[in-house]
Amino acid sequence: MTETASEAPRRRGRDARRDARAAKQAVSQPYINRNIPFTEILSEEGLQIIEGNAETILQEIGIEFRDDVEALEIWKAAGADVQGERVRIPKGMAKELIKTAPREFIQHARNPERSVKIGGKALVFAPVYGPPFVHDLDQGRRYGTIEDFRNFVKLAYMAPAIHHSGGTVTEPVDLPVNKRHLDMIYSHIKYSDKPFMGSVTAPGRAADTVRMAEIVFGKEFVAGNAVTISLINANSPMTFDDTMLGALKVYARANQATIVTPFIIAGAMAPAAVAGVLAQAMAEGMAGIAFTQLVNPGAPSVFGLFSSTMSMQSGAPAFGTPEPTQVLLAAAQLVRRLGVPFRSGGSLCSSKLPDAQAAYESAQSLWPGVMGGVNFMLHGAGWMEGGLASSYEKFIMDADQLAMMEVVCRGIDLSETGQAMDAVREVGPGGHYLGCAHTQANFETAFFRSTVADYESFEQWEQEGALDAAQRANKIWKHQLATYQEPPMDPAIDEALLAFIAEKKAAVPDSNI
Amino acid sequence: MTETASEAPRRRGRDARRDARAAKQAVSQPYINRNIPFTEILSEEGLQIIEGNAETILQEIGIEFRDDVEALEIWKAAGADVQGERVRIPKGMAKELIKTAPREFIQHARNPERSVKIGGKALVFAPVYGPPFVHDLDQGRRYGTIEDFRNFVKLAYMAPAIHHSGGTVTEPVDLPVNKRHLDMIYSHIKYSDKPFMGSVTAPGRAADTVRMAEIVFGKEFVAGNAVTISLINANSPMTFDDTMLGALKVYARANQATIVTPFIIAGAMAPAAVAGVLAQAMAEGMAGIAFTQLVNPGAPSVFGLFSSTMSMQSGAPAFGTPEPTQVLLAAAQLVRRLGVPFRSGGSLCSSKLPDAQAAYESAQSLWPGVMGGVNFMLHGAGWMEGGLASSYEKFIMDADQLAMMEVVCRGIDLSETGQAMDAVREVGPGGHYLGCAHTQANFETAFFRSTVADYESFEQWEQEGALDAAQRANKIWKHQLATYQEPPMDPAIDEALLAFIAEKKAAVPDSNI
Repeated sequence: MTETASEAPRRRGRDARRDARAAKQAVSQPYINRNIPFTEILSEEGLQIIEGNAETILQEIGIEFRDDVEALEIWKAAGADVQGERVRIPKGMAKELIKTAPREFIQHARNPERSVKIGGKALVFAPVYGPPFVHDLDQGRRYGTIEDFRNFVKLAYMAPAIHHSGGTVTEPVDLPVNKRHLDMIYSHIKYSDKPFMGSVTAPGRAADTVRMAEIVFGKEFVAGNAVTISLINANSPMTFDDTMLGALKVYARANQATIVTPFIIAGAMAPAAVAGVLAQAMAEGMAGIAFTQLVNPGAPSVFGLFSSTMSMQSGAPAFGTPEPTQVLLAAAQLVRRLGVPFRSGGSLCSSKLPDAQAAYESAQSLWPGVMGGVNFMLHGAGWMEGGLASSYEKFIMDADQLAMMEVVCRGIDLSETGQAMDAVREVGPGGHYLGCAHTQANFETAFFRSTVADYESFEQWEQEGALDAAQRANKIWKHQLATYQEPPMDPAIDEALLAFIAEKKAAVPDSNI
Repeated sequence: MTETASEAPRRRGRDARRDARAAKQAVSQPYINRNIPFTEILSEEGLQIIEGNAETILQEIGIEFRDDVEALEIWKAAGADVQGERVRIPKGMAKELIKTAPREFIQHARNPERSVKIGGKALVFAPVYGPPFVHDLDQGRRYGTIEDFRNFVKLAYMAPAIHHSGGTVTEPVDLPVNKRHLDMIYSHIKYSDKPFMGSVTAPGRAADTVRMAEIVFGKEFVAGNAVTISLINANSPMTFDDTMLGALKVYARANQATIVTPFIIAGAMAPAAVAGVLAQAMAEGMAGIAFTQLVNPGAPSVFGLFSSTMSMQSGAPAFGTPEPTQVLLAAAQLVRRLGVPFRSGGSLCSSKLPDAQAAYESAQSLWPGVMGGVNFMLHGAGWMEGGLASSYEKFIMDADQLAMMEVVCRGIDLSETGQAMDAVREVGPGGHYLGCAHTQANFETAFFRSTVADYESFEQWEQEGALDAAQRANKIWKHQLATYQEPPMDPAIDEALLAFIAEKKAAVPDSNI
């Protein structure tokens, strides 16, 4: 990369302008309130076929609730046909139970300006969840640590188009399994003021999450408001296990939000056919959400669907393929009819690098997710390698795409300024709009500007080092972490959280179970 | 890249299977007949506002038809208000004239199985058009040659999801400007049997295109059928020049298809506001298509729209930004109401490399293009660097995405096989679908398989060289060119074409004007 003395100031000027723009963008909305219609791909007949099949699965085949006697008792009392661990739910019963679940609800953040609406026309972007590895261009792929965890929390906090701090932004494998949730929850609270997700790896860890939330928000507030949202995966096909059911019950009883998510690799955990995946996933999600309502009617619960196809060569899940796109679009429609918020999508990919494959694949779930009407989009930024790695560079690139989606969702401005007829009259045939009054008044805000993309001439781009998008993103995340500033927090709350964590950590020895 | 002796056969086995699959995919449909609804973002009120503004522009401001006395005479005779070169078209008149243009039509290929429908629910993918440069990973960026031109024709011929041979797949700058169209048209005819686009750089070159088509299809057939489609760009704002009008007249009189395309960089050639861009573009396109119908009522004409935003930093067009996405979705709706086929979209990007920027940006026009209802998608594959370079690697990667879009557009299979209820019953809770009868019967065709993406484990991928998508695409295009086989052609036709070209070339000296 060549740089002459005269170019440096120009570069710095650009950097400063970029920072100024970023600051302006940072005061964006706490969530997207979409102003464009939903894209729907199923006909009324198609919807009814899949809804009918889901009810048939619930009634004839049933769902297993494993190693949880209480859950079986609850279903029995509700009138389901329970044999062993198999719960057969009469047609219409799950749908009826779900009616007490809210269509939309607020998840509160410790900074009230960051509270998000989940459901209806709202769309919330959250970061990647779950990867044991992290990846960056400098060090390649390695296990995630609590430092990486904090870094991703900070990057999500700084990203104007990411509305949520998420949950397991990476797995901090340097900490003992039975205690790491304490550091994870604390990091979300401490390094961000956006809403966050709770621990689900054991009922006790869910309880710790609620307790820490009570320290932040006050016990009374938590009892009546969702301040956490937590991911309850079904063990597809048609099974829930005691770990997930345990966490679900803790959260539902505490009036905290759950996302009940059939996690499906089509061809392995569901049929190798889109309509089949949809029917099974509907049955699973309906059973799970109905169960939350049996535990605590009115507890907020989101219908989640995570679907990929199975690569018949490697057995690995394949992301960015068209069948999950169809599943996503159709599921959004089905869940909207069911009347609960929908979680799906994300910037999913199979690629091992933040390359063109990663980007094309991510678009294949981001686009249908946004257009179809996802309300809570987990994995919005940073997901790489089939969810095995959280990528620093991809996080930055994805967040840039999410910001674009925010603009798309705004819809078209039909005000007088948007119509710009005065400009058309002023300029006339063969003229140029750059100098006209309308452009002068609006050009700063008229068009979205990517913070990652390069729009320079080939020559200018070459002179600046001929960097690709990932290399530019590498500079950006480092710059962001270097300039990160902690959101303010009441020192008394911080102290109470640290005391709680110290007490919990001292109570039992470290363990990796 | 390490490769042990034992791995090579396994690799070859995989290559063979990939080739077999590619061959199977190669017998795909000649065009997409979409089975999913259109995504629409404008309300009825929004549509009316923009339609009203377009009519206002036509009547009050008017369109300039420059350096073409005949065009002005035609408009005058039709009842327009012509003053100097300014043509003011009374409200409703353009719309009325357009009624004679077909809603959809067939563009015939020399192989009848490759003929495409343009309009309605049909979607045709065509390659990149216009770049003076080519780019590949080995040689970087350089001027295009006729060899590159032939290469892209061959690659488009071999891509199952590319339905059309396109036009100026790259500019063969090694040939004289006044004769290169002959070699370009010949290459499309000779090295592909898919439909192709005609020359528009001078009326005489348009006439040569028609003459060569007559040699291939017969004079009588050409007189009654569209066998070429050609790109007529408006000089936005609100201007058509004599070159384009000359070519337009040649094609319309020969009953050949035209695509009248406002080419807009918002902020420069149109207002810096989406609704303003739409009104101006509608006015320009309506004037152009109405003119084709004045020249020859019933001549097929497609409404094109090419829009990007202007980067206020560099002045360059910025692709992959959200405002052109909105323009594209809304224009598809407006043109559908107007009742003619729509051309837009493509895998547009600003990136100088086939990297993540290129892919994200391309998705930002491919997705709305497909979902919104584009009928003819030029620049479907290979576009790079704001249209300055045709990229070999990106061509391969884009074509892979187009193939995915074909699957998305198919809609969801609701047959018994698609519903897969037998599989759900067979497998039951906690089971696995891989071994069930339905999966065994369907897994070969159940899921789309990318020819570019890597779905291996991290370790396997690393062992195979840790290639990124562009590096894999580099291997693929070389393999394709090495295995290319020419489609058969009647030797008498070939001879006649070559004789015509020789005669034309001998008639005038080489010139670069």
